Amino acid sequence: MTLREHERIDDLMRRGYRIIQNETKFCFGIDAALLAWFAQVKPREKVMDLCSGSGVVPILMDARNACGDYTGLEIQEDMVEMAQRSAALNEAEDHIRFAAGDVKEASSLFPKSGYDVVTVNPPYMKHNVGLKNPDMSIAVARHEILLELSDVLREAAKLLRPGGRFYMIHRPGRLPEIMGLMQEYRLQPERMILVHPNKDREATMVLISGIRGGRNALLVEAPILVHETPGVYTEKVRDIYYNEQLR
Amino acid sequence: MTLREHERIDDLMRRGYRIIQNETKFCFGIDAALLAWFAQVKPREKVMDLCSGSGVVPILMDARNACGDYTGLEIQEDMVEMAQRSAALNEAEDHIRFAAGDVKEASSLFPKSGYDVVTVNPPYMKHNVGLKNPDMSIAVARHEILLELSDVLREAAKLLRPGGRFYMIHRPGRLPEIMGLMQEYRLQPERMILVHPNKDREATMVLISGIRGGRNALLVEAPILVHETPGVYTEKVRDIYYNEQLR
Repeated sequence: MTLREHERIDDLMRRGYRIIQNETKFCFGIDAALLAWFAQVKPREKVMDLCSGSGVVPILMDARNACGDYTGLEIQEDMVEMAQRSAALNEAEDHIRFAAGDVKEASSLFPKSGYDVVTVNPPYMKHNVGLKNPDMSIAVARHEILLELSDVLREAAKLLRPGGRFYMIHRPGRLPEIMGLMQEYRLQPERMILVHPNKDREATMVLISGIRGGRNALLVEAPILVHETPGVYTEKVRDIYYNEQLR
Repeated sequence: MTLREHERIDDLMRRGYRIIQNETKFCFGIDAALLAWFAQVKPREKVMDLCSGSGVVPILMDARNACGDYTGLEIQEDMVEMAQRSAALNEAEDHIRFAAGDVKEASSLFPKSGYDVVTVNPPYMKHNVGLKNPDMSIAVARHEILLELSDVLREAAKLLRPGGRFYMIHRPGRLPEIMGLMQEYRLQPERMILVHPNKDREATMVLISGIRGGRNALLVEAPILVHETPGVYTEKVRDIYYNEQLR
């Protein structure tokens, strides 16, 4: 395994899984770890990860579940090539594949109603909000430059089979829009978990799932509080990072 | 002050305020206390409380703020008459009034764009869901028999001035519908607080506010955890019940 300039290998601390990341580009954070924990994959299910980046979400899900068939779709070709090398590094190329393509057109690139699960950690910020990173690769991962939330939800709904499950992590500030669009595309919100830095602070992330064509009432689960005291993770977050047995 | 059969007087533990309740009807719970705490009223603002019941929300808000002008609208005439006696009991008839009328028609009974604040603790359950209480008065308070969520939000939007504030407590299970309707009626969701029985349990209530014609992103504040250990309220909930200085 040869690494390119600025690349490093990180241990995912689950079943020996590792990932290649480029230090000058978007490196994964707690968001990806939370999403991989939140998404439930059953044996032999087909999973599509949109906005896959370095491929960390399918690789972490595989490290957790070891039973699904994963495809990651990402528009940046150099990221796709790096993600493919990570799959090979874990000897998982037979069930974790990555493809270069535009998420806005996902349902014309891949089979409609062909997936049991869709996961996505999309760009959080509107195109016209906040400073953009001068590195285009990081800017694309953070800002809705190449696709918008409505594109993500429309394509996810088309890729999922009826009853299929959608899992996303996003910013709580956009929940009204998220819930409006999920209902518009018939991805009925099913479970939601707010993530707060600690018990006294406002939420900084939200995990939300939906069922294509679902009808149940939304369940708002116990919040995730990241820190017990400054610099010390809560037991729940330590479990999410390190404990295979939690769910 | 004479009480009717089954009526009692409860101390609200704020500035000596008291309320008359009928033990055979809907008596207020933590919901009303949370809503009165959540709603912010500034000096001389006009406040409309929809589905006012015994009048507990305006009476609690007045006990907290002592500066607004409150109207409570309730369809059950005997509840209105009891609420009026509670206002008199607190010598607050000049700035807390109650009226009998249908919330579905609120904006034809009261001035459109005439209020700074609208509060509501509506019936939580859909007409066709769950067992109904055989007592019609309790059933009407719990189930959407006489009005639906869309009626509440439509009328609230009409009563509020542009920039006016809407405050509601409801069930988290209905958040997708709540957020969809709030956006439909241009009551942009502004603040949200989930209420959990304790740190490990799913949310049982949600406080949500909106601004008529607002544009800001939703702020999801720190959750309210009701119990620290079984039977023992958290400091935050003790503050909400008893501490005037909290906000």
